[in-house]
Amino acid sequence: MAPNKSPLAPESFPDFPVIPGVRYACGNSGMRYKGRDDVMLAEFDAGTTVAGVFTKNAMPGAPVDWGRKILPTGLARGLVVNAGIANVFTGAAGKKTVEDTATAAAQLLNASPEHIYIASTGVIGDPIPTEKITSLLPRLTEDLSADAGNSAANCILTTDTFAKGAVATAKIGNTDVTIAGFAKGSGMIAPDMATMLAFIFTDAAIPASILQQLLSDANERSFNCVTVDSDTSTSDTALLFATGRAQNVIPATNSDDSLAGFKRALLEVMTDLAQQVARDGEGASKFITVKVTGAESNPSAKTIALAIANSPLVKTAIAGEDANWGRIIMAVGKSGEKADRDKMSLKIGGILIAENGARASSYQEKDVMPHMTGKEIDIDVDVAVGDGRAFAWTCDLTHGYIEINADYRS
Amino acid sequence: MAPNKSPLAPESFPDFPVIPGVRYACGNSGMRYKGRDDVMLAEFDAGTTVAGVFTKNAMPGAPVDWGRKILPTGLARGLVVNAGIANVFTGAAGKKTVEDTATAAAQLLNASPEHIYIASTGVIGDPIPTEKITSLLPRLTEDLSADAGNSAANCILTTDTFAKGAVATAKIGNTDVTIAGFAKGSGMIAPDMATMLAFIFTDAAIPASILQQLLSDANERSFNCVTVDSDTSTSDTALLFATGRAQNVIPATNSDDSLAGFKRALLEVMTDLAQQVARDGEGASKFITVKVTGAESNPSAKTIALAIANSPLVKTAIAGEDANWGRIIMAVGKSGEKADRDKMSLKIGGILIAENGARASSYQEKDVMPHMTGKEIDIDVDVAVGDGRAFAWTCDLTHGYIEINADYRS
Repeated sequence: MAPNKSPLAPESFPDFPVIPGVRYACGNSGMRYKGRDDVMLAEFDAGTTVAGVFTKNAMPGAPVDWGRKILPTGLARGLVVNAGIANVFTGAAGKKTVEDTATAAAQLLNASPEHIYIASTGVIGDPIPTEKITSLLPRLTEDLSADAGNSAANCILTTDTFAKGAVATAKIGNTDVTIAGFAKGSGMIAPDMATMLAFIFTDAAIPASILQQLLSDANERSFNCVTVDSDTSTSDTALLFATGRAQNVIPATNSDDSLAGFKRALLEVMTDLAQQVARDGEGASKFITVKVTGAESNPSAKTIALAIANSPLVKTAIAGEDANWGRIIMAVGKSGEKADRDKMSLKIGGILIAENGARASSYQEKDVMPHMTGKEIDIDVDVAVGDGRAFAWTCDLTHGYIEINADYRS
Repeated sequence: MAPNKSPLAPESFPDFPVIPGVRYACGNSGMRYKGRDDVMLAEFDAGTTVAGVFTKNAMPGAPVDWGRKILPTGLARGLVVNAGIANVFTGAAGKKTVEDTATAAAQLLNASPEHIYIASTGVIGDPIPTEKITSLLPRLTEDLSADAGNSAANCILTTDTFAKGAVATAKIGNTDVTIAGFAKGSGMIAPDMATMLAFIFTDAAIPASILQQLLSDANERSFNCVTVDSDTSTSDTALLFATGRAQNVIPATNSDDSLAGFKRALLEVMTDLAQQVARDGEGASKFITVKVTGAESNPSAKTIALAIANSPLVKTAIAGEDANWGRIIMAVGKSGEKADRDKMSLKIGGILIAENGARASSYQEKDVMPHMTGKEIDIDVDVAVGDGRAFAWTCDLTHGYIEINADYRS
C-alpha cells in the first residue's frame, strides 16, 4: 500500500529525456516487494566514463565496497540496482552476491565485471538471494530501452512517497548536452531501509578524472547539504555516467571555460534531487532551508547549517509552527564552529528576529506567524566572524516520523 | 500542572543529608512560575573551595560567562539559581542582571561578588527582571537552613517530572566525608528551556585546583556521557562546592591515595544524577545504556557510544520495542570512528545478535523480545580495533517528545 505522497512533493515527475547511450529495464524479483518492480538494469555504450561518491559510513554495504574497488577504471558498461534488501553487514555472502551479479550482467552485456556497478537499498543484515536478481537479468537485457527512464526511477524506491527526477541542459563549447538523474531516499530514515541512491546520466563526453571532480564538487553543495535525521546510511551512493554520444569537444581540464555551463547544470540537477529527498523525509510537513553567512569558512558555515538542520528541538518547533528562535541560537552554539554571539543576527522568513546578540527591538512574533504556517521555511543566520556561507536543507520532525519508525513490530 | 512523573524515575528522592557548611533557602519570584518556588539561595562557609564545568555551546548565557570569569578565584560563598528564564542571548542587560544579583547576594552574605555563583534555566532570549530576584534575597538570607536541601532540589526545576538527587560517602584518610548533589534537566530538551544544572556539595577539605580536576574527570564519565537529543544547551553548568568542615587531612595532589574513595563516590553521585536526567528525557519510556568496547581509545569509544545514543533511528526503534540491530550498525558506522566492520559484534540485553560482521547464526529475534519490552535497554557493541571503552546513557524517542516540543503555540 503506497504511503500518501508528501505534501512537499513537486507537482510531477519531470519529462525524463532519452540520454543517448543509456538504456534501462525493470523487473520484479519478488525478494521483498510483491507486485512491483524492484530491480533495474541500465546499459551504457562502450566508452562511457563514470564518477562516483559513496557514503562515509564506516559500515558500508557490499555494493559500496565493490563500487569503490572498480571506480578507478573510470569506465562503466552497466548498472544493477535492487530495492528491498541493502546487502549490508552480510559478510562473505554479501560480497559474493555482488560479484556474481556483476559477472552475470557483464556476460549479458558483453562487458567486463569491473565495469558493472551495483547498488542496493533496503533492510540491513539480510543476505540477498542472488539468483532472484541474476535470473531476471536475461529478460531485462532484452527489454532495455532508451525511453524507460521514468520506470527506472520508480523501481528503485523503498519508502519514498514519490519518484525523484531532475533534468537540465547545457552547452560544452557549441554542443548541447543533457543531464538527467533520478534518486531515491527519504533522507536515510526509512524504517529498516538504507539509503540515498542517485544516478545521473549525460550524453556529454568528459574524461573520468574530470567527471569525478565535477561530481565531488557538486555533491558537496547538494547531497551533502541535505539531512533528514542525521543518520548517515551505510549505502549512500551517487553515480554519474557520461556516454560521450553528444560528441562535444572534450575538455582538457576541470577548469576549462567550456565546462562552466555543465557545472551549473549538474549542480542544479543534484541540488534539485537532494532537496526532493528532504521533501520526502518521513512525516515531513515543512521543507526547511537554512542559510548561514558570516562564518569563518564555507565548510564552517556548512557545519553550522547542518547543526541547525539536525537539531530535534529546532525541527519540532517548526513542526509546531513556532518561531522559536532561541533553539536556533542554541543550535548555532552547539555546532563547535566560531560564531560571534554578540554580533550575530537571525531572520526567519525574511523577518529580522535577533541582531547584535539580542532580540531585535523591531521584532513582533505576529509578523513571522504567516511564514511559520507555510510549507517552506527559511532560516537565515549570520554569525559575523568571516565570509563563509552555506546552505542546508531539511524537513521538520513530526509525529509522522515516530509513527513510521517506532510504531510497528518487526 | 505538573507533568506525569517519568516511568523511569527512581522510587524516591534520597534522604538529602546536612552538609556541614552549606545552607539553602527558596522563594517565589513570580517571574514565570506562579505558585511554586523558583529561586534558590545557598550560602557556604568562608573557605569553601569550588570547581565548575560549563557548557561548550558557543552561545553561553550570561550566568555561564560570569561563572567562567570568577572560577579562577577557587572560592565560593554563595549560589543563586533561578528557574523560568535562562538569561541567554540577552546582551548587556543580561550581564547586568548577573552582576547586580551577585552584588546583592554578596552584600547580604558579607562576601565579595566574585565569590557568588549564578545559574539560570528557562526560556532563551527573554531578559530577567532583576529585581524579582534581588528583592527576594533578604528574606532568603534569613531563611537559610542546613536542612533545606530537598526543597532546594525542587525549586530549580523547569519541565522535569521529578527532582534528582544523589548521595554518597567516602573516607579521606581516616575522615568520613559526605557528597550530596541535585540536578535538573530533561536532558536539554524542555520546550524553550535550557538546560542541565547540577550542584554538588561536600564537607571535604580539598584545594580548588585539585577539586577542579576531580570534577572535570568525573564529568567526562558522567554528564558528558548522557544525551537525550544531542541538543547541547546554552547554559549547562555543574558546580562542586567543598566546605572543608570535615577537617580531613588536605590532599597534596590529585593523585593522593587518600582521594581514591572520594573520586569513586563523586563519580557515583554524578553518574547517578546524569542517568536521572536521561530518565527524565521528554517522552522517555525506556532508559538505554550503550556500552562500547574494543575502540581505538576511550574517547573514540565515547564518540561511538554517543552516535548510537543520539541516532533517531535507533531511539525510535527502541521506542517501538524493535530489536533493529541494523540501525545500531549504521550508527556505529556514522560515528567517524575506527571500527572493524567484519570483526565487530553486538549484543542487546545480553543476547548475541551479530558477530564477525554478520548476523549471529544463533540469533533468533524471539530471544531478545522480552528484553525489548522492558524499561531498561542494554546495548553492547565491540568494534574490535583496540581497548577503548565507554558508556553512554539516553532514552528512547517517542510521540511524547514530539508532543512536548511541537504540539503547542508559543
